[in-house]
Amino acid sequence: MDWINNRKILIVGLGLMGGSYAKALKRLGYSVSAIDARKSSVEYALDNGIIDEGSDHADKKIISEADTIIFAVYPRIICDWIRENQAMFKPGIIITDVTGIKGNIVYDIQDILREDVEFIASHPMAGRELSGVENSDDRIFRDANFIVVPTEKNSKEAVKWCSNLGQILGCRKVSVLSPAEHDRMIAYVSQLTHCIAVSLMTCHDDPKIADYTGDSFRDLTRIARINENMWTELFFMNKEALLSEMDAFIGELSSIRKYIESEDEEALKEKMRTSTARRESFDK
Amino acid sequence: MDWINNRKILIVGLGLMGGSYAKALKRLGYSVSAIDARKSSVEYALDNGIIDEGSDHADKKIISEADTIIFAVYPRIICDWIRENQAMFKPGIIITDVTGIKGNIVYDIQDILREDVEFIASHPMAGRELSGVENSDDRIFRDANFIVVPTEKNSKEAVKWCSNLGQILGCRKVSVLSPAEHDRMIAYVSQLTHCIAVSLMTCHDDPKIADYTGDSFRDLTRIARINENMWTELFFMNKEALLSEMDAFIGELSSIRKYIESEDEEALKEKMRTSTARRESFDK
Repeated sequence: MDWINNRKILIVGLGLMGGSYAKALKRLGYSVSAIDARKSSVEYALDNGIIDEGSDHADKKIISEADTIIFAVYPRIICDWIRENQAMFKPGIIITDVTGIKGNIVYDIQDILREDVEFIASHPMAGRELSGVENSDDRIFRDANFIVVPTEKNSKEAVKWCSNLGQILGCRKVSVLSPAEHDRMIAYVSQLTHCIAVSLMTCHDDPKIADYTGDSFRDLTRIARINENMWTELFFMNKEALLSEMDAFIGELSSIRKYIESEDEEALKEKMRTSTARRESFDK
Repeated sequence: MDWINNRKILIVGLGLMGGSYAKALKRLGYSVSAIDARKSSVEYALDNGIIDEGSDHADKKIISEADTIIFAVYPRIICDWIRENQAMFKPGIIITDVTGIKGNIVYDIQDILREDVEFIASHPMAGRELSGVENSDDRIFRDANFIVVPTEKNSKEAVKWCSNLGQILGCRKVSVLSPAEHDRMIAYVSQLTHCIAVSLMTCHDDPKIADYTGDSFRDLTRIARINENMWTELFFMNKEALLSEMDAFIGELSSIRKYIESEDEEALKEKMRTSTARRESFDK
């Protein structure tokens, strides 16, 4: 199951992420096929040389020839798709995904999967505020962190294979976390930030706001342009961890509110010194 | 008091903003002087051709020759400085500032100011996460909004003059707001965003966080590198408006929290559609 022998890669789901994977892997010399129910996405990818082969349905030839399958679809779809189509899988293949939550899906997938096939979860922390294969871009991996998320069922070889996938995509840093660790972390650094951006944008209705904003407001609301179907699904599937992070953040912001109300200069400055020191360590 | 006759401009306070004003105005052909108690800042600016003349104290020659004075110091300092030095001002000059809060200072300044001199407040919504004249850069005005903040005491000519200042600095858009409107707006788009960024950075202590973050967390915490002395002063001087904005935001985020907890899909998606539509209008 190493990369030398994995010549044919099938991507299920040809949106922004699927298209970006296809571009990166084609550039590296792999034969890339794709399946997506949206005929126009498949045609676009074929016409623009993003994939070598494609279909708008679970095509037997494409599925049975794949040495690797990468799922770049909404999380709830993966299990059903595997259940319906795994009889066609080539023996001994390896499967991964790109999904932003893990605990709620990886165990289910591994439970229903054929014994001779291995599913190893992964999460490229990359994206854009746009969607669709037309906006795919393999440069999104350049500054991205890539997280491999094995369970106890995964082999060391699969962890190594998947880490290598993150590296060849061009990701900045590859880490390994358990599903629970991943979901707690993602609730904090990704899901909470999206909740904050949306709230900041919706807590006031001032149509002239763009005339008065500086960079800070623009930065904090960039991700307020949000795919409501995908993110609602991700939030609900990671509800417990996300609610706990929201509570921690609301508690912290309420402390800062209290320091401002009581003009507790020293407590407020101490928070600012802590945030400055932590944020500086990012830019090193 | 038009720009043709205002040949000599004095900048009081040679930090990041003062230095950036000096660079922009020198480039336009004005004669620029500066006063700052930090001798090293004055020397740096003289050595690097950022100013034509400078002093580390309230030099009589420099002050009395100025046709315009721009205050780029902490807000609490301005009143005292004017009280101590206005006897030296040339008759009929015009004064402005760069301060991020207005209601708490403009009326005081106008109350103590000599009858023949006019103070018109303004606020360039530009900045960097760095400080000091060494980091000054007149390109910070390019995408900035510039707010002119007159009171009933200001003349139409001064509003026009100050709007023109924003234009020649190269700002993207110049608006006029009352002090109360300005302070409410700034509490929302600038002060609240800084409180959020600090809270997001301090609500968890995970030294490995940089290995797992994506662009969204980096965007939302860029301004968590914060000058604790300046921002504490700004927060306290605009306390009422800021607390009200913090309450509105915490209330909104708590609503979103409730929608996630109860899995109210439609209410959550509606918020996301609103935030997406509002944020899109920024990028037009």
